[in-house]
Amino acid sequence: MGLMQLNSFAGGKWIAPSGQTRLIKSAITGETIAQAGSDALDFQDMLDFARNTGGPALREMTFHGRARLLKALALHLNNHRDELYQLSYQTGATLADSKIDIDGGIGTMLVFASKGRREMPDDRVYSDGNTEVLSRNGTFLGQHVCTPLHGAAVHINAFNFPVWGMLEKLAPTLLAGVPAIIKPATDTSYVTEACVRIMVESGIFPEGSFQLIMGGTGDLLDRLGCQDVVSFTGSAHTALSLRSNPNILRNSIRFVAEQDSLNASVLGPDVTPDAPEFDLFVKEAVREITTKAGQKCTAIRRIMAPANLVDPIIAAISAKLDKNTIGDPANSATRMGALASAAQAADVLEKAAIIETEATRVYGDPNACDVVGEGLEGGAFVAPMLFHCADPDSAEQVHATEAFGPVATVMPYRDLAHAGELLNRGGGSLVASVITHDPSVARKMVETSAAFHGRLYFNNRDSMGESTGHGSPLPHMVHGGPGRAGGGEEMGGVRGVMHYMQRTAIQGSPDILSAVGGTWIKGATRKTEAAHPFTRNFDQLSIGESIMAGPRTITLEDIEHFAHFTGDTFYAHMDEDAAAANPFFPGRVAHGYLLLSFAAGMFVEPNPGPVLANTGLEGLSFQKPVSAGDAISVTLTVQKKTKRTDTYGEVRWNVLLSNQDDEQVAEYTLLTMNEYAPITEE
Amino acid sequence: MGLMQLNSFAGGKWIAPSGQTRLIKSAITGETIAQAGSDALDFQDMLDFARNTGGPALREMTFHGRARLLKALALHLNNHRDELYQLSYQTGATLADSKIDIDGGIGTMLVFASKGRREMPDDRVYSDGNTEVLSRNGTFLGQHVCTPLHGAAVHINAFNFPVWGMLEKLAPTLLAGVPAIIKPATDTSYVTEACVRIMVESGIFPEGSFQLIMGGTGDLLDRLGCQDVVSFTGSAHTALSLRSNPNILRNSIRFVAEQDSLNASVLGPDVTPDAPEFDLFVKEAVREITTKAGQKCTAIRRIMAPANLVDPIIAAISAKLDKNTIGDPANSATRMGALASAAQAADVLEKAAIIETEATRVYGDPNACDVVGEGLEGGAFVAPMLFHCADPDSAEQVHATEAFGPVATVMPYRDLAHAGELLNRGGGSLVASVITHDPSVARKMVETSAAFHGRLYFNNRDSMGESTGHGSPLPHMVHGGPGRAGGGEEMGGVRGVMHYMQRTAIQGSPDILSAVGGTWIKGATRKTEAAHPFTRNFDQLSIGESIMAGPRTITLEDIEHFAHFTGDTFYAHMDEDAAAANPFFPGRVAHGYLLLSFAAGMFVEPNPGPVLANTGLEGLSFQKPVSAGDAISVTLTVQKKTKRTDTYGEVRWNVLLSNQDDEQVAEYTLLTMNEYAPITEE
Repeated sequence: MGLMQLNSFAGGKWIAPSGQTRLIKSAITGETIAQAGSDALDFQDMLDFARNTGGPALREMTFHGRARLLKALALHLNNHRDELYQLSYQTGATLADSKIDIDGGIGTMLVFASKGRREMPDDRVYSDGNTEVLSRNGTFLGQHVCTPLHGAAVHINAFNFPVWGMLEKLAPTLLAGVPAIIKPATDTSYVTEACVRIMVESGIFPEGSFQLIMGGTGDLLDRLGCQDVVSFTGSAHTALSLRSNPNILRNSIRFVAEQDSLNASVLGPDVTPDAPEFDLFVKEAVREITTKAGQKCTAIRRIMAPANLVDPIIAAISAKLDKNTIGDPANSATRMGALASAAQAADVLEKAAIIETEATRVYGDPNACDVVGEGLEGGAFVAPMLFHCADPDSAEQVHATEAFGPVATVMPYRDLAHAGELLNRGGGSLVASVITHDPSVARKMVETSAAFHGRLYFNNRDSMGESTGHGSPLPHMVHGGPGRAGGGEEMGGVRGVMHYMQRTAIQGSPDILSAVGGTWIKGATRKTEAAHPFTRNFDQLSIGESIMAGPRTITLEDIEHFAHFTGDTFYAHMDEDAAAANPFFPGRVAHGYLLLSFAAGMFVEPNPGPVLANTGLEGLSFQKPVSAGDAISVTLTVQKKTKRTDTYGEVRWNVLLSNQDDEQVAEYTLLTMNEYAPITEE
Repeated sequence: MGLMQLNSFAGGKWIAPSGQTRLIKSAITGETIAQAGSDALDFQDMLDFARNTGGPALREMTFHGRARLLKALALHLNNHRDELYQLSYQTGATLADSKIDIDGGIGTMLVFASKGRREMPDDRVYSDGNTEVLSRNGTFLGQHVCTPLHGAAVHINAFNFPVWGMLEKLAPTLLAGVPAIIKPATDTSYVTEACVRIMVESGIFPEGSFQLIMGGTGDLLDRLGCQDVVSFTGSAHTALSLRSNPNILRNSIRFVAEQDSLNASVLGPDVTPDAPEFDLFVKEAVREITTKAGQKCTAIRRIMAPANLVDPIIAAISAKLDKNTIGDPANSATRMGALASAAQAADVLEKAAIIETEATRVYGDPNACDVVGEGLEGGAFVAPMLFHCADPDSAEQVHATEAFGPVATVMPYRDLAHAGELLNRGGGSLVASVITHDPSVARKMVETSAAFHGRLYFNNRDSMGESTGHGSPLPHMVHGGPGRAGGGEEMGGVRGVMHYMQRTAIQGSPDILSAVGGTWIKGATRKTEAAHPFTRNFDQLSIGESIMAGPRTITLEDIEHFAHFTGDTFYAHMDEDAAAANPFFPGRVAHGYLLLSFAAGMFVEPNPGPVLANTGLEGLSFQKPVSAGDAISVTLTVQKKTKRTDTYGEVRWNVLLSNQDDEQVAEYTLLTMNEYAPITEE
């Protein structure tokens, strides 16, 4: 393997390291394998390129457009996984570790692509929450919207997941419509560089959508403004120095931090040694100690068990650790590879020594690591170590010192409240897990400890077959946590996209808000076309297009007939006196479903046409009872249109039912699938 | 008026000023009227009292419980408004100004009370968003929840709204379940102190729910931890010094800042001088210049008009300012009172002089203010001033210098894109308004400028009768903004409550998530009682209680009959060949509403009982077509219960329809109102 020259990608060009460079060593052999350096970069030019080229091109697309590109990019990366696996061995990662990093990153991108299509509009403006009625007559309303920031997202990533760490930030950023400037941690940056090269060569995203810094960030942070975001993953120490940057503080620049934390796992008080949860607890703990050699920001550092189960837990974890083969990660028999660098290995041993001042080492040896394989003498291998802290109440360091490697401490708790206290002693963490089969234990832990954790992971016999693991942040769920965990939040589906967007409260008339959100809002202008809207295809329909039908008078015979036909002989429809005694009704009333059915009968256009199906209905409220003799009219209005496939899209219709006195009796949103204009061949 | 001794309220006791105290002067006479000082306070004791007494008492209640107390407190304050009005004159505020402050604060509290009941659960855990399906078979799921932070909220408020400024932060904090420590700006703190006294004397909130610091905060910020929040309103300068606090940075302590900003108002390019929008624009601008003597963080500082309308706009604003009587705010003829202090007045004149280096003063005189009234020589009166900046592109100071008083600058723009650029030159603001009757102008402004503003306010002839004003933050809408506006966000309904809660991703089995959120989740255990659930009252029903009914076979006669009875003769129900040609259907299918109606017929219990009414339905999706001959069953499960009145509450039921092959054909949530257990008298 020659010396890899790691290039930055800036302003659309690959730029070789020059000036002061840094040499990178293989984690498994200690040989120098790569060289990086960013002295040749002009950070203002990079920002300008992001802001003036990447940003406008991304903002021109809709959320769906960007989601489609994300999916294409993920599939492209999937076809090039093997190149990345090969490089990844040099970071100390086994193939299983690399799959978490590489396949995990690709999977995260696919989830964002999917959520972008399903949970965001085919539009450039995202509507957040419901319309707020700010006036008696509804002529002045409010609506929150989110729009992409006009600046750049600076991503500063950790060394442990060179691919996932980049993609879990990049996917929501690009989906938001914001260009990224990516700065990976140097130790493992050769994997990131290879991944970016694959992404650039795909040509899928517009120029300026992402740039890459291989080396230091120079004065980049001093040049940021109110439309830029810094998103950081790494140590508390580095986070503090970055967030203290005077320019960031002065300009209230968004700073999202995700820091390593003292994550914990609790064995529920309901669990006995012969319960399936006991083995599950041990299995999860061992997996967290050994995967990526414990170099995960979410890994379990503190293991809490009822006092009487501490010894059996230590015995069971130790027995499993005995089977943990350490060595060449490219060897398929290897269970645990090396740490990312000699410096990391030294740091882990230093922190383990601090923990040992308060806890007894019950497994492993800082000075002996049995490494299987040839030529690995220079590798950064560290043996797993387990500590036992008998008095966690008076201990300080076990709750505050993170050895970022295969190290954990077992401690006893007295009762559930005590377990909650110990959990919270971490001062804020990314994740805590509780292995319990008792739902009331889960509820109690949420009340005592959720406020201290970004994620609470419960597992037991019911979920263990499909659970994803204590340490795995999923794109659907938020990843981050208070206090020691950095106070930030990433991912969580659309929530994570919002970190790169500005939420703005919009106030105005219904017509104004309809235009802003691309959705017809009650009170906005309706328009009528000569043809029935069900005869007009998806493309022809416009927002606010409307049809009124009826009236149809509801008779007592209709109500009687409907009741006996359907079997719904609820007394409010059948018995005048009993109905009148009900606080909601004046006497016998029509069935709500009778009204819905008659409404459909009034507005339907029976012949084949572009409306393919009624797929559902949302937010139905019955607002006023309807009695025999009432004459009901229905108004149908196109609220929103969303393309779904190559041939049809979803139309959302506002449906209002009113009586002869023009009082609204019911309202709902009807969903239909409608065909596009027929494709005519020449 | 004697010298008021302003007491702090700490640890449940009123504590008089001692040690180094500060004297406070009347804004209108310059006389010393009050004395404050916090040297006697022990800030660690205050934090302990909040964390150990106030927090647990608040967290014991549900959101609805706290919302009810908020409502009671608001009504109590409403009965004591007059005492506050009287004090408020001394701050320079007119009665109209005081109503914005005092009535506005009470109104804000009422909106939070109402939203707490309507949009949050009667529970201690808030579920955020939908359940996330994280596994193929649904045995492992995700749900985000929010729970109250376990620390204290430190509120540092601005001088301009001594009541609203406190209540707009206090309402969401208490609703969240978090105790507050309130530090008002000293200049006007005597109004705040009086308001807190009324709140304390009401005894409505539990002890420790709020404390008050009359004076400096000493080392309070150095003692905060990961469960505390600092929420600040005021100048950029103070915000910077607070957010740079090493303890806040080191512990990732939440810091929400709302800073004064260079808010702007744009006259739309569609507006002609004879349009109603022209007068509306002038009226809004003058109101923002004169209300509270321009001391509003949201006031208009920059006025943008098409180049050809700049002169008419200046003339019209000047004409209106001529009618602005300045003087004793207690005099009902006075339109504008004094600034809050001599120091504020001096600062405004200094900033106006900076603006004058780039703009021509076209109205008002920094050295002459015509004050009507007796004994006001020592008051902090400043005359309104209007500037004209002819070249806003090369200007810097008019976009960056905020004179926090009755001062604004008019500037021309060339086209809508230019107006957007000028708006964004403010570097982030709380609010921008656009007066336009053209919805496409509004949409365009959102795309170019929403990312730079916390709020965009549109107004025109349609909404002006009910609009609430450019400068009024409403509790329903977020208040805050990027960059110069501080990067924070407050209010916005439930969004504002979340600033005092931690969002946590919960993962686990359906039974675990059901217990955590107090809501039955699909896949969780169902239980059956001997009696039909419709015969059991609200209190008897339990989450997960279920009934299965049917099957009923759908016949072709049913479909034919329903079609002709309702009038819904859509071809998919009537014509075998045409239906089969539709991509969704195998042939003629049953109407969706027929299925809903039959389902009701199957599960209904016809006799009078605790179910009073079906009030609506949510999230209905038709998932599989139903043909003649299919036999449909229905399963009804109690999903959630919420008390609504003294006699009945809402029950949400999950409804699943399945066919003879156990395939799900439809799903929805049914809403009913159910009576509580009858109240039996002894």
